[in-house]
Amino acid sequence: MQANPEFMRQAIELANENVTSGSGGPFGAVIVRDGAVIATGANCVTKGNDPTAHAEVVAIRNACRDLGSFSLEGCVIYTSCEPCPMCLAAIYWARMDGIFFSGTAADAADAGFDDAFLYDELTRPMRDRSIPSEPLLKERGRESFDVWRSFVQRVDY
Amino acid sequence: MQANPEFMRQAIELANENVTSGSGGPFGAVIVRDGAVIATGANCVTKGNDPTAHAEVVAIRNACRDLGSFSLEGCVIYTSCEPCPMCLAAIYWARMDGIFFSGTAADAADAGFDDAFLYDELTRPMRDRSIPSEPLLKERGRESFDVWRSFVQRVDY
Repeated sequence: MQANPEFMRQAIELANENVTSGSGGPFGAVIVRDGAVIATGANCVTKGNDPTAHAEVVAIRNACRDLGSFSLEGCVIYTSCEPCPMCLAAIYWARMDGIFFSGTAADAADAGFDDAFLYDELTRPMRDRSIPSEPLLKERGRESFDVWRSFVQRVDY
Repeated sequence: MQANPEFMRQAIELANENVTSGSGGPFGAVIVRDGAVIATGANCVTKGNDPTAHAEVVAIRNACRDLGSFSLEGCVIYTSCEPCPMCLAAIYWARMDGIFFSGTAADAADAGFDDAFLYDELTRPMRDRSIPSEPLLKERGRESFDVWRSFVQRVDY
C-alpha cells in the first residue's frame, strides 16, 4: 500500500476542526481512489443524534452515495484514529482495499473513548459480554435465509 | 431480561418482507422501550447504496432520530439474526440494555454472509487481517484528542 501523508494531514485537520467547531468528537476520515479524495467524514454522533455516525462510517456513506454503489473496492481510507470495531467491520462490508491510521485505540481510550474496551468485548464469548444477548425463537432462525435463497431476483452483496 | 416473542416475530416478518419486496437482505430488527416498539429497521444495503445500512443500524438511527437522542439507554433490540461485529459495536455505542436474536452468525454464514468471518478477523492481530492496516503520521496521533480535552464546551458521548 502506497501512503500519501497529505491525506492523513487532511483527516487530522478534519478531526481538529470538528472539535473546535462544536460539531462532534475528535475524529476525521478521508477516502481515496486512484490518488484522489472522493469523500470525507467527521464524527457527528452528538450533533446528528446518531451513535453510528463515526468519521469512517460518515465517509463511507458519503462515498457510496456519490458513487451510487454499495462497494468501495479500489478505495483506501485515511482515518485520524484506528477504527473502532464498528468502523472496522463497516470498512470490510464496504470491501475497501486498505486502512491508514494515525492515533491508536489506546490513544482513544486515554481520551475517554470505548474503542479498546469494545475490541475486548467482541473477543469475549457472548455470555461474558457486558450487554446481555439471548437467543429467542431459535427454531425460526433460518427462515429468513431460506426466503433469501429462494428469491431469484436477489441482489447479492 | 424479559423477552416478548411477539417482537421477535415482528423482526422476522420484517426480514422476510424485506427480501420478497426486493428491498434488501434477509434481516429485520425492532427496538423496544417500556414494552413498546419505538423503531424498526430492515437491511437496505443494496437499495440505499449504503454498506452500513444493516437492520440493526437502520433501527438505531430511526430510534435516535425519533427520540432526539444519541443514547438508547433503557432500550432492547430484537433482531432476526445475531448482530455482526459492526451492529454489535453500534449497539454498544448506543448504550442499549440487551439483545435478543433468532438466527446465528453460523446461519448467516451458511447463506453466504460474512458475519462469522468478520468475528474471526476482528480477533486477529492487525498484521494478520485480510484488509491491510498501516500507521501513518503516528507522531500526530494524539493531537486531535488534545484538542478535544482542551475544548471546554465539548459534549461527551
